[in-house]
Amino acid sequence: MPEIFHTTILGSSAALPTSLRHTSAQVVQHHNRFFLLDCAEGTQMQLRRFKLPLMKIDHIFISHMHGDHYLGLPGLLFTYHLLGRDKALHVYSPPGMQQIIEIQYEISQLRPSFDVVYHELTDDARLIYEDQRIQIETLPMDHRIPTYGFLISEKPRLRNIRKSAITKHRIPQEQMTLIKQGEDLVATDGQVVPNEQITIDPPPPRSYAFCSDTKYTEQFMERIKGTSLLYHEATFMGDKADIAREKMHSTTLEAATLAKKAGAKKLLLGHYSARYKELEAFREEAASVFPETYLAEEGDVVNIE
Amino acid sequence: MPEIFHTTILGSSAALPTSLRHTSAQVVQHHNRFFLLDCAEGTQMQLRRFKLPLMKIDHIFISHMHGDHYLGLPGLLFTYHLLGRDKALHVYSPPGMQQIIEIQYEISQLRPSFDVVYHELTDDARLIYEDQRIQIETLPMDHRIPTYGFLISEKPRLRNIRKSAITKHRIPQEQMTLIKQGEDLVATDGQVVPNEQITIDPPPPRSYAFCSDTKYTEQFMERIKGTSLLYHEATFMGDKADIAREKMHSTTLEAATLAKKAGAKKLLLGHYSARYKELEAFREEAASVFPETYLAEEGDVVNIE
Repeated sequence: MPEIFHTTILGSSAALPTSLRHTSAQVVQHHNRFFLLDCAEGTQMQLRRFKLPLMKIDHIFISHMHGDHYLGLPGLLFTYHLLGRDKALHVYSPPGMQQIIEIQYEISQLRPSFDVVYHELTDDARLIYEDQRIQIETLPMDHRIPTYGFLISEKPRLRNIRKSAITKHRIPQEQMTLIKQGEDLVATDGQVVPNEQITIDPPPPRSYAFCSDTKYTEQFMERIKGTSLLYHEATFMGDKADIAREKMHSTTLEAATLAKKAGAKKLLLGHYSARYKELEAFREEAASVFPETYLAEEGDVVNIE
Repeated sequence: MPEIFHTTILGSSAALPTSLRHTSAQVVQHHNRFFLLDCAEGTQMQLRRFKLPLMKIDHIFISHMHGDHYLGLPGLLFTYHLLGRDKALHVYSPPGMQQIIEIQYEISQLRPSFDVVYHELTDDARLIYEDQRIQIETLPMDHRIPTYGFLISEKPRLRNIRKSAITKHRIPQEQMTLIKQGEDLVATDGQVVPNEQITIDPPPPRSYAFCSDTKYTEQFMERIKGTSLLYHEATFMGDKADIAREKMHSTTLEAATLAKKAGAKKLLLGHYSARYKELEAFREEAASVFPETYLAEEGDVVNIE
């Protein structure tokens, strides 16, 4: 049974929120860990609205320092303080976030109940988070100010030993780990049983590539080859390619082209310009290039499989 | 016919927003002018939700520099920029707002399309805004950091000349203004007609006193005597008077006591602690002291009459 791995959409509007769409934020859950990707204005209310566990978020990743991607962070931190949080919170962002937060602590005379550990994203350090099960790396976006996407990848899991093999060969405890790592079994009589006879493949590692905001670029394509789910901004429809280029954003068709070239399993569109009321045309246009296209809409829980 | 004078509640939650209540913000409309009092996180979305004219707001008043009263301002300014605003915007607040905004302009590399004129509130300058029809003065609150209430008062209007008197006495044009100001009529034959015989009283000036956040204090009571509408924070019910005092907030009973002592016409409660789900008990408790008590709830439009 693979572990839970999904993203919940809290907002998918571009620069301007609308009465129906909040700006950028998503919560990625992997197993029992919760990661917040972007934290636009209203994120703390959206977390409550969709009954996500506010207090279990220990790592927040901000793609870039445009308001529609970070303005909810100060409020979320004030709320953590009021709720008496004592666990440290890790914030990953391009330079500037610490300054923005600390000036507000100072002016509001707040001594927060917990530490914030600021991790400044740079082009030099790609791997920014790692635990037993997953790792998170930055992806270089091409936008008006320094901007990073995030690639959340499962680590390869150990092989599963067939239950029948355990009984049949009476595999000693001390050999279990080695066999899970791919070694052959050496029985007590010296007989060697090839690993593939007694184990089955683990589920293949899954990955989620979160790419917002960027103009069309293939500069990180090799790194997201075959990703389970590609979230890619699609601020405009295909007929607005000129505006997209000028503002360093992407279109539906560009997002779909990248998904296709990178061999992604699925494409999730988001970061829609407030000018569009209906989104179905976005999906249809992208699906003409890459059929497995889905729309990110508030409250959606999208599996990474 | 008196001019439009009302307040629309955008948020009435204390420090923590809940899934149903946003934090502090109200739009006061007088005639064709719109004033924003406080600007908590999500205010720009609430303005859209309640179809208020975003672009007609030229004056924003921030009571104090706690996050639940100002965190929506950076986002509103970014949005004004994206919408191409060119009119100057006036922001009145205790010191610090300019620093918080400008550091964010700098980090996000934004050159805003309009000027923000910052007015720092101090104890020395009471009158902070004035036009033909109204004036706005600060009221000194008693809270953990420098905090100001706002008293929005109509200026006295000219007396109305009875239509019958205009015909009967053939009042010459040049005497009209003097009579409206209260002078007697001097007829062409030298006869003096007392002002009260030919005019009627104008509608009495109305006023709105916005008092958030503060512990119970009577230090501004004389200045709000007989106010048409007193908005007073009531973070807690009466049984939590100890916590209220400790946190420098007020209770239902304290708000009602002040309304009664000040001879307010109506009391509007707000700034409810997130611990309370139902608010009717707030109203009932305050009404036991001051019957004309109302609850501020999102989307309510409350007349000032």
